[in-house]
Amino acid sequence: MRTVHTIKELRALLNSHRQHGHRIGLVPTMGNLHTGHISLVEKALQQADTVVTSIFVNPMQFGANEDLDSYPRTLRDDQEKLEAAGNHIVFAPSAEEVYPNGLAQQTQVCVPVVSEGHCGASRPGHFDGVSTVVSMLFNMVQPDVAVFGEKDFQQLAVIRKMVGDLFMPIEIVGAPTHREEDGLARSSRNGYLSKQERQQAPVIYQALKATADALGQGHSDFAALEAEAKKKLSEAGLRPDYYNIVNSLTLKPAQPEDQQLTILAAAFLGTTRLIDNLSVNR
Amino acid sequence: MRTVHTIKELRALLNSHRQHGHRIGLVPTMGNLHTGHISLVEKALQQADTVVTSIFVNPMQFGANEDLDSYPRTLRDDQEKLEAAGNHIVFAPSAEEVYPNGLAQQTQVCVPVVSEGHCGASRPGHFDGVSTVVSMLFNMVQPDVAVFGEKDFQQLAVIRKMVGDLFMPIEIVGAPTHREEDGLARSSRNGYLSKQERQQAPVIYQALKATADALGQGHSDFAALEAEAKKKLSEAGLRPDYYNIVNSLTLKPAQPEDQQLTILAAAFLGTTRLIDNLSVNR
Repeated sequence: MRTVHTIKELRALLNSHRQHGHRIGLVPTMGNLHTGHISLVEKALQQADTVVTSIFVNPMQFGANEDLDSYPRTLRDDQEKLEAAGNHIVFAPSAEEVYPNGLAQQTQVCVPVVSEGHCGASRPGHFDGVSTVVSMLFNMVQPDVAVFGEKDFQQLAVIRKMVGDLFMPIEIVGAPTHREEDGLARSSRNGYLSKQERQQAPVIYQALKATADALGQGHSDFAALEAEAKKKLSEAGLRPDYYNIVNSLTLKPAQPEDQQLTILAAAFLGTTRLIDNLSVNR
Repeated sequence: MRTVHTIKELRALLNSHRQHGHRIGLVPTMGNLHTGHISLVEKALQQADTVVTSIFVNPMQFGANEDLDSYPRTLRDDQEKLEAAGNHIVFAPSAEEVYPNGLAQQTQVCVPVVSEGHCGASRPGHFDGVSTVVSMLFNMVQPDVAVFGEKDFQQLAVIRKMVGDLFMPIEIVGAPTHREEDGLARSSRNGYLSKQERQQAPVIYQALKATADALGQGHSDFAALEAEAKKKLSEAGLRPDYYNIVNSLTLKPAQPEDQQLTILAAAFLGTTRLIDNLSVNR
């Protein structure tokens, strides 16, 4: 496995793989890898001959009061996990490599509608940062296929719309959320939790399961189901940010006739904000 | 020469060229081709094995009160000129092919700073439309090199910044403005001019030349030079839109110490809006 830090090295390396007719896969990450990330790499390995995992804590997608500075950087550990998984290339650029002219005058790629509401409402500018940096990574790597986790459901929807709207010649693959035994979705931010918060956290998944069961049984009083779940989260000591039952494709509020529904949830445990989601076909 | 109207046909055709190791060149146009456009195709032929000229009157870059509907569509004539020039592929998609979901919810690529002022001020949203459609054409064609006319100086600056900021793997080449014998820059919009307006129009180039001469002689009272040129245009019966002496790289107002200067001009003749520019190194 090779690790490169510059776009120039990356392109030189990829050119030699491409000359061998290799299909290139990309797994964009912010590092601090857990089994969820590794499952994305495994998925990419099924679809491509050469897999690039990028590790870049993208300043453009963090708000002014968010955890950019404290976000865990664990390159050495990440490299070991990626090597064990069979990943071929690690691309770990600096912020100066990606944004040589700073962020203030950066060209942006903005995806409307699916980026609005939910995390888009709680984190203004977040998805512009995501779609912009993913476009840039796509231009740097020129992958044939890119794999994203379904845990960041809205992010995956934003990327799919961007790729469709702009006719990017890249296949987008979603991979299912990895969970701890108690149901908590794997996330680098779980590492921020105190022991007590860690014990409280699985209630998010429990709430999602309960709502999904009710939706599966045909309940369609979405507002009541959302209120019930928020109450459950509050009673368990979490501070719900949003809890929305939506149409899985448009991410707009669910309508009784919708057949593909997704429950999107975000909640604070102390200062840590966790997100999760669950989809239901009915 | 082949003409294709769908992205699917275009990609299939280009794949076969790429399999032969061809370097691909793109000349994006809105059609109604004149010798200026043909010189872009000739430039592309020097740099690439396969040249694609796109013909697409892009609704996204027209304002509500602009000439989208009346913009000349002359595909048959354009094909003849392109065939004579040695162009290989004409890509002439419909608006429905490029924007299958309409314009209201379209993902946008927005280039700040160089898109502001000048035409960006007179035509709000224009450059967002340009940078977005050019990104899309780049994703459809995946060219190695793309050629743009220097006549649309600000547009070329916007494209260069977009490609640099987003690390698009495409070489951008500018080609000099083609002029009529009396100095008028070739433009599809010249066809809108009445006989009398056509006689008045070369004053734009005359003003640019006079300003460029003064700048070349070391004059640095930019405001006075701009005012003088606007007066000249008004006296000749034109309505100046803007006339700005700028730093050639930043497109910000020129400073006395700047060595690369460009004079950007736009003026109305009746309802027709013409643009032109001239650069000076000193």
